[in-house]
Amino acid sequence: MKRRDFVKALGGLGGGLALGGLAACGQEQKSGAASVASSSQQTFEWKMVTTWPEGFPGLGTGAERLAKLITAMSGGRINVKLYAAGELVPALEVFDAVSGGTVELGHGASYYWKGKAPAAQFFAAVPFGMNAQEMNGWLYYGGGQQLWDKVYAPFNLKPFPAGNTGVQMGGWFNKPINTTRDLQGLRMRIPGLGGEVLKRAGGVPVTLPGGEIFTSLKTGVIDATEWVGPWNDLAFGLHQAAKYYYTPGWHEPGSVLECMVNMDAYNTLPDDLKLVVENACKAINMDMLAEYTARNPAALEALKNEHGVEVREFPAEVLERLRRISEEVVAELAASDPLVAEVHASFRDFQQEAQAWHAVSEEAFYRARRAG
Amino acid sequence: MKRRDFVKALGGLGGGLALGGLAACGQEQKSGAASVASSSQQTFEWKMVTTWPEGFPGLGTGAERLAKLITAMSGGRINVKLYAAGELVPALEVFDAVSGGTVELGHGASYYWKGKAPAAQFFAAVPFGMNAQEMNGWLYYGGGQQLWDKVYAPFNLKPFPAGNTGVQMGGWFNKPINTTRDLQGLRMRIPGLGGEVLKRAGGVPVTLPGGEIFTSLKTGVIDATEWVGPWNDLAFGLHQAAKYYYTPGWHEPGSVLECMVNMDAYNTLPDDLKLVVENACKAINMDMLAEYTARNPAALEALKNEHGVEVREFPAEVLERLRRISEEVVAELAASDPLVAEVHASFRDFQQEAQAWHAVSEEAFYRARRAG
Repeated sequence: MKRRDFVKALGGLGGGLALGGLAACGQEQKSGAASVASSSQQTFEWKMVTTWPEGFPGLGTGAERLAKLITAMSGGRINVKLYAAGELVPALEVFDAVSGGTVELGHGASYYWKGKAPAAQFFAAVPFGMNAQEMNGWLYYGGGQQLWDKVYAPFNLKPFPAGNTGVQMGGWFNKPINTTRDLQGLRMRIPGLGGEVLKRAGGVPVTLPGGEIFTSLKTGVIDATEWVGPWNDLAFGLHQAAKYYYTPGWHEPGSVLECMVNMDAYNTLPDDLKLVVENACKAINMDMLAEYTARNPAALEALKNEHGVEVREFPAEVLERLRRISEEVVAELAASDPLVAEVHASFRDFQQEAQAWHAVSEEAFYRARRAG
Repeated sequence: MKRRDFVKALGGLGGGLALGGLAACGQEQKSGAASVASSSQQTFEWKMVTTWPEGFPGLGTGAERLAKLITAMSGGRINVKLYAAGELVPALEVFDAVSGGTVELGHGASYYWKGKAPAAQFFAAVPFGMNAQEMNGWLYYGGGQQLWDKVYAPFNLKPFPAGNTGVQMGGWFNKPINTTRDLQGLRMRIPGLGGEVLKRAGGVPVTLPGGEIFTSLKTGVIDATEWVGPWNDLAFGLHQAAKYYYTPGWHEPGSVLECMVNMDAYNTLPDDLKLVVENACKAINMDMLAEYTARNPAALEALKNEHGVEVREFPAEVLERLRRISEEVVAELAASDPLVAEVHASFRDFQQEAQAWHAVSEEAFYRARRAG
């Protein structure tokens, strides 16, 4: 897919990841009709709307695979028809469409819905929070899923983790970041909690529709932008707009994608099909991270060796300042609402122990392996 | 489960992970009979044998969850009955039992079968090789699965990844390891490729049945043993036998567990049930790593704070020596056989790129997060 097609397809507001086009069709659809072939062979015609442009690598293709997997693994008893952002509802109306029962399934990222449920952000990405492996530990075995259920229940939604990008990149910059002074006045496209952190560090977070990012960076309207990681960034052509590629993506250390299911629709399923939906999400959660892990390395190589991109690590001083501000921002968010506080406490406690374990296991191994 | 029950249940030879008891029942069983309810409702009575003692945390409970998930997600059309090691066949006869069609499913780890297929080791664990996230990238999107299919096809087996421990621990030592000199004459229970590496570094790898490890370490018959990680090691009581707990597990950086399916049995399944088996394995692959990620941190805390265990990192000099020897050992293995060479080349190339990517993403993030 060429960059200009992407740019055309993109038009997101807010949210860390690329939101799909906002052009709405908006027509009302009848909720998935069920036809009964036999008592155990009832079939369901379901629709899945997504926040992603059609064919968007990783995020969009993951949603497509999920729709196909539910259909195929159920032997067609749940027949899922997929709609890219804007085909049936705009990207930012996915939550309401599934909540209200216009459609049965939605694929997106929970931080898009912070206006409706501030606690939702903890189930996608938290600056200096948990990476993919830790998020999965928390969600499946650390109480995270139960809290997510609680946050989404008032909206008649059942959420499942359904994809992960792994640690993202810190973004593209048209000047080096050598000290925290270089953040002063830095105009950067960085939405959400990361944007708030940049603002308190002296920067200027800018909200831009996806289609304006490339040109704005190229022409100096902005000084920097974050996006996803090498695979998506190379496809988007950002190396043609800025020279310095900074790591790590402190603001999105392992963004969880979600599949939300309309609760009434979910409850009409027999037990085996409930498990098909739940475990298709789990399989895609694994699958998407595996694909990012396989595609990012080759894209990073290409960016460095074919396009002369300079990969730099943020200086320790800069990361330390951003980390301290992130703690403040997250603590303030937690103090804003009892449910947010409950989710934050669980997230923080799990992270504290997991971080101590991964310091002596995963991180110690990475260090040992590249020594010498 | 108490330590003495574990000890009773264990009796493994070789292989890095705990093999189940070797007491065989050995009776011949008829291969899963299929009864036809209707053309689309054919049911299958399948047996799953495993290399794990009953209820073994993580590995054994993961296999149990897999058996239940296939049964439930198929609506009972595949009814899987689980057998712990020794209940139907001994741990080390799992491969032959599934290959020969005595049973349809087996859960184990592929390095147990190196005597039959030397290339199999690359699909479980390689010293200084890839961690869980990288193994999944290689297996699902880097050509690893296709090679695994090729290695197992002559045995009439279809393999799937079905679990991961994450980075293991380096093991329990009754004396500090300060320099490579401390490896000289070190009697350590460490099987497989890791054992060969230790031998070339001057140590004495010892093979012991699982039931003898604790007492041998406690009484000084051996100086050290590797096992899995905090969760399993605490349950096994190894902190009562040695004082120093070393990290990282250079010899097992992300051991993949496997589910192998008898190819004839697999081929009799309709397409939807083939996908149920494949994706149940994928979901359990995710699930087991998530459980290790959630349980290891609390167990590590308990070992340190309640049991006074001293966690130490191997000195850089020691790791560097072990790393260089590991490269030699793996290169010699690759030179031994064309199929091993083919698998090794794919593994090595993927690791090289993934390692460069994870150095600037996952590892850089771990470092940034704990700074300050």
